[in-house]
Amino acid sequence: MQSDKRTFDCSYPPIERPFTGFEPAALQAYLDGELVETRNLVKSIVTRPEFRHFEGHDRHEYRRQVLVWLRTISDAGLGRWFLPPELGGQANLRQLLAVCEVLSFHDGSLLIKLGVQFGLFGGSIQQLGTEYHHRKYLPKAAACQLLGGFAMTEIGHGSNVQALETTAVYDSEHRDFIINSPSYSSGKTFIGNAAVDGRFMVVFAQLHVGADHHGVHAFVVPIRDENGQPLPGVKIEDNGLKLGLNGVDNGRIWFQNIRLPKTELLNRFAEVTDDGRYRSEIKSNNSRFFTMIGTLVNGRITMALAANGMAKSALTIAIRYAARRRQFGTGLQETLILDYPATQRRLMPLLANAYAFDFAVKRLVRIREQSRGGGTGTRSVESLAAGIKAFSTWSAMHTIQVCRESCGGEGYMFANRFAALKADADIFTTFEGDNTILMQLVAKNLLGELKDQLKEMNPGRVARFFVDQRLKALKKRFMSLTAANASLLNPEQQLDYFRFRESTLLLRAGGRFRRLTRHKAMDAYSAFIHLQTELLELAEAYAERQVLESFLEAVANVPEQTLQRPLRKLADLFALFHLEKHKAWFLENGFIGGRRAIAITNHVTRLSQEVRQDAVALVDAFGIPDQCLGAPIALG
Amino acid sequence: MQSDKRTFDCSYPPIERPFTGFEPAALQAYLDGELVETRNLVKSIVTRPEFRHFEGHDRHEYRRQVLVWLRTISDAGLGRWFLPPELGGQANLRQLLAVCEVLSFHDGSLLIKLGVQFGLFGGSIQQLGTEYHHRKYLPKAAACQLLGGFAMTEIGHGSNVQALETTAVYDSEHRDFIINSPSYSSGKTFIGNAAVDGRFMVVFAQLHVGADHHGVHAFVVPIRDENGQPLPGVKIEDNGLKLGLNGVDNGRIWFQNIRLPKTELLNRFAEVTDDGRYRSEIKSNNSRFFTMIGTLVNGRITMALAANGMAKSALTIAIRYAARRRQFGTGLQETLILDYPATQRRLMPLLANAYAFDFAVKRLVRIREQSRGGGTGTRSVESLAAGIKAFSTWSAMHTIQVCRESCGGEGYMFANRFAALKADADIFTTFEGDNTILMQLVAKNLLGELKDQLKEMNPGRVARFFVDQRLKALKKRFMSLTAANASLLNPEQQLDYFRFRESTLLLRAGGRFRRLTRHKAMDAYSAFIHLQTELLELAEAYAERQVLESFLEAVANVPEQTLQRPLRKLADLFALFHLEKHKAWFLENGFIGGRRAIAITNHVTRLSQEVRQDAVALVDAFGIPDQCLGAPIALG
Repeated sequence: MQSDKRTFDCSYPPIERPFTGFEPAALQAYLDGELVETRNLVKSIVTRPEFRHFEGHDRHEYRRQVLVWLRTISDAGLGRWFLPPELGGQANLRQLLAVCEVLSFHDGSLLIKLGVQFGLFGGSIQQLGTEYHHRKYLPKAAACQLLGGFAMTEIGHGSNVQALETTAVYDSEHRDFIINSPSYSSGKTFIGNAAVDGRFMVVFAQLHVGADHHGVHAFVVPIRDENGQPLPGVKIEDNGLKLGLNGVDNGRIWFQNIRLPKTELLNRFAEVTDDGRYRSEIKSNNSRFFTMIGTLVNGRITMALAANGMAKSALTIAIRYAARRRQFGTGLQETLILDYPATQRRLMPLLANAYAFDFAVKRLVRIREQSRGGGTGTRSVESLAAGIKAFSTWSAMHTIQVCRESCGGEGYMFANRFAALKADADIFTTFEGDNTILMQLVAKNLLGELKDQLKEMNPGRVARFFVDQRLKALKKRFMSLTAANASLLNPEQQLDYFRFRESTLLLRAGGRFRRLTRHKAMDAYSAFIHLQTELLELAEAYAERQVLESFLEAVANVPEQTLQRPLRKLADLFALFHLEKHKAWFLENGFIGGRRAIAITNHVTRLSQEVRQDAVALVDAFGIPDQCLGAPIALG
Repeated sequence: MQSDKRTFDCSYPPIERPFTGFEPAALQAYLDGELVETRNLVKSIVTRPEFRHFEGHDRHEYRRQVLVWLRTISDAGLGRWFLPPELGGQANLRQLLAVCEVLSFHDGSLLIKLGVQFGLFGGSIQQLGTEYHHRKYLPKAAACQLLGGFAMTEIGHGSNVQALETTAVYDSEHRDFIINSPSYSSGKTFIGNAAVDGRFMVVFAQLHVGADHHGVHAFVVPIRDENGQPLPGVKIEDNGLKLGLNGVDNGRIWFQNIRLPKTELLNRFAEVTDDGRYRSEIKSNNSRFFTMIGTLVNGRITMALAANGMAKSALTIAIRYAARRRQFGTGLQETLILDYPATQRRLMPLLANAYAFDFAVKRLVRIREQSRGGGTGTRSVESLAAGIKAFSTWSAMHTIQVCRESCGGEGYMFANRFAALKADADIFTTFEGDNTILMQLVAKNLLGELKDQLKEMNPGRVARFFVDQRLKALKKRFMSLTAANASLLNPEQQLDYFRFRESTLLLRAGGRFRRLTRHKAMDAYSAFIHLQTELLELAEAYAERQVLESFLEAVANVPEQTLQRPLRKLADLFALFHLEKHKAWFLENGFIGGRRAIAITNHVTRLSQEVRQDAVALVDAFGIPDQCLGAPIALG
């Protein structure tokens, strides 16, 4: 007998695409928006044969591959887009995001490498520097002739950036800065492009001029010569193997009294004059720090979008597989996985989330563009970006995991992409601001806004304000408890639930914070920590409300009639899924009764079942090229 | 200026270990139980220098390393332990589990490779075979002279094993079986030890004798010769790179009309007589199938334990790091991460889970041992193993992820172990039974037990039974609503909540199932699918109740007085954390009111704060050797 030489038909069963009444292409056009050409150009590049997913296992080789990819993209002219208009570019956030979303479909390392080069390195020079820096660095950075990074995080300080240890001491005699890492823990770490490729770093350090300390400032510091050798006084270590993103060369950097010309301080918000005096329009170190950090909000928006892009890939793979894989059943054929209520319940709300974050990021970009130039809008944009980044990245991690599990053993095969998606997306919950810290930032801003509102009132009016709000809430509760069930599918009513939760949590936290700091004489930091879990809940409620608003806006503005129904259903599912998550809160606060609570759950189950019909069309509309998707179980 | 040559102190700050009033060693002794010598022996092996974690990136090299490790362990005599007593071994489940837990601290691939060899290959021969098979295969398998695997799953059928396509046709003329894979989808897949090392496989196939089909049976089939070459008629493919466990050689196998002697049917439950007739004490194909599958319950118990072992590693790393890492704050030092309420809230309930699953698995083993020999206890052991496996593996995945995030960027470094823990533990939710399918099995068994209870009643009594149960539930609700808050920390009261939830869900699902199948004439399968989400909820409630019972038993039996307090607190935290998760259900079913619901949440917060004091001692008591833990952030 010979070894088995038969040839079998190895193809997967067809993906079943039921009639939906809308064209996935029309929905994709709505999602792609005006930047369809940008997207298509990037797609045309990353689907070339030389961009096929890296399958080796040597991280050094992977890094080299990603660098080649980055240069290919830059050579196609995309890098130049990120230059400011005065340098002949067309840098705008929308374009960066369109590029990044397509890359998030393809390879996480390339996405991050590009993000480091154009977003963090180029972006911080643009945001924190002035014309001298723009002209000196940006054209070369955009062409990838000069690779750089963003050296903020230190070994001892990741989240608490204000406490960085690296120093920049102004030497008035030589008119330069001395950059120094005084300790092991002051070493910059996890810095992308540091281990191998970067020649310049935007370094954040404590500025000292004479006897005065002015807080954290950013400097452009050379770290390698043209041959890639570390410069004297610069010590670089490779961060080594990571859980994911191994195509990015993260490293650690220590400086030993490097001398840096005075010009290399990024001086949009502060500078040292020729006669050696420190000058800034923003008087407090604290405000200046938050102004500088606040300009870096684009990174968070990019992460929110990229994480969602990865969730879209995971959903596309899992839903298409569920629409072709059968298991168990009594009829002629076994039952399609997608026809099980448990599958629908697991995957459909996460599909609704992916649409929700898509619209939320687009709305955030519009608000960001309107608020340019700072002013009162800055803080709210910062909150919005922080809240949506945290919400979206956490949701993406959860989505990818559920999708992996719903594909069973096939989901565990490297070829089917969940391995890379899980590993690469994981750190998104940490970088560009740890999610928990970002949610605290949101809560802090919300409390700050409430405080501003109360500041102009006298104590009597403040007390009345809280009483009024409680009465309003009571009235709302009464109205809600007596309202009909049908209203659960009314967008205004849904939003009302979300708003009620947010405002109640805000007023409570505000009241408690006030009592702690006034009557119990606690300092603000301690009071804040004391209320930490409540504040995180408030921030979550804020983010959810914002995302629902974005979704409802997107449904209202949909240009094509046929798209109304599927998007309306997804929005309902998003709203009710998150209401269900917080059912206990609404119940224990007397805003809904038991019957309403049960109705919410039944709605989620029913909507999941209804969305199942549209599910394959809805993931097709994400427009992820087969070459990016990769997973054999999802193609065909 | 020279390159930076300073030497800094690179050590981490000390791990802070506050006074707790108990000795971690005493608690460890309680956890280790009577098998401390087994554990210590395995620890003494896996902490040798040659067992240091694999750090290469070539999966073929990793596989070779794991094989060497397996042989080292087997050479130390551990393999012989797994032989049945009549062959001079001392095989017992406790010993296997003690070994597996220590291996789960060390390397997931070694754990699984050993599990495949001794648990699945050896274990299935032991459970499904008779003396002939035991003598022929087990001594060599125990000594790793004969490597084998367990070929059940097929490309087309992972969960629905009853529908396997591989055939075993009895040839009465030659007195042998012809094993055949009739299609691509009938190929065995994800089979451990198949791609490289295995020489024999326990193969599951549809048995046909003459014109009769008898369902799935197991056969010992040789697949490779002594030189490792596939035998004629056997086609083997490597499954390729996986998300994790890349030290295990999973593969696919197709058979082309292999002839197998009659003796190689594992014939404990069924055999083909010398005169070519099929004989089994179990008449129905269906019952026989479930009896055979039921004997394989040890694999699920092992997975529940191993997943929890990995969660213990993750918790040890995260909690020790949180007890040395400081960030933000206003005092002389920044605040310890572990002192943040958010950290406590995130990590402490998961620490309580890890203790809970430890006790639950131990209790499950005792129940399993008592039920040996089958009988009425079999179904309940099967449910228990399925429920705890699903609950524990899902919880482990969640725990590892939260721990990774709570270590921030450090958690993303490969050296700090979360990468391996996440990747290796991931598939535990799928193999040895997909968790969702297992939970359905639990629910099915529970419904079956209810049906048995009702079977002996006449229709009038059945109706009265449901009415009685509803009245009882109403009374319980009333008692609960009027009880004092203090009772939330009363174990009996906690258990009452868990039991009430489970029995209510069971009665409701049972009633609905009855109505669907009787009055609406739905077939049982369709009714089961129709109720799927409710049944999964029921199974979860069952598993939670079982685990809480185990925890309370373990607290009651603790030998040392000083351990009472910390374990009591952990049990409270476990109970209230899971009550909190289901608060909405208790509220909407009128079992608790809003104030009680809020009290539950406040208890979880307060208990998390109190357990924080014991946290480092509680993870120290897991007794994970530094060499296994590996993570630099957790040592010292």
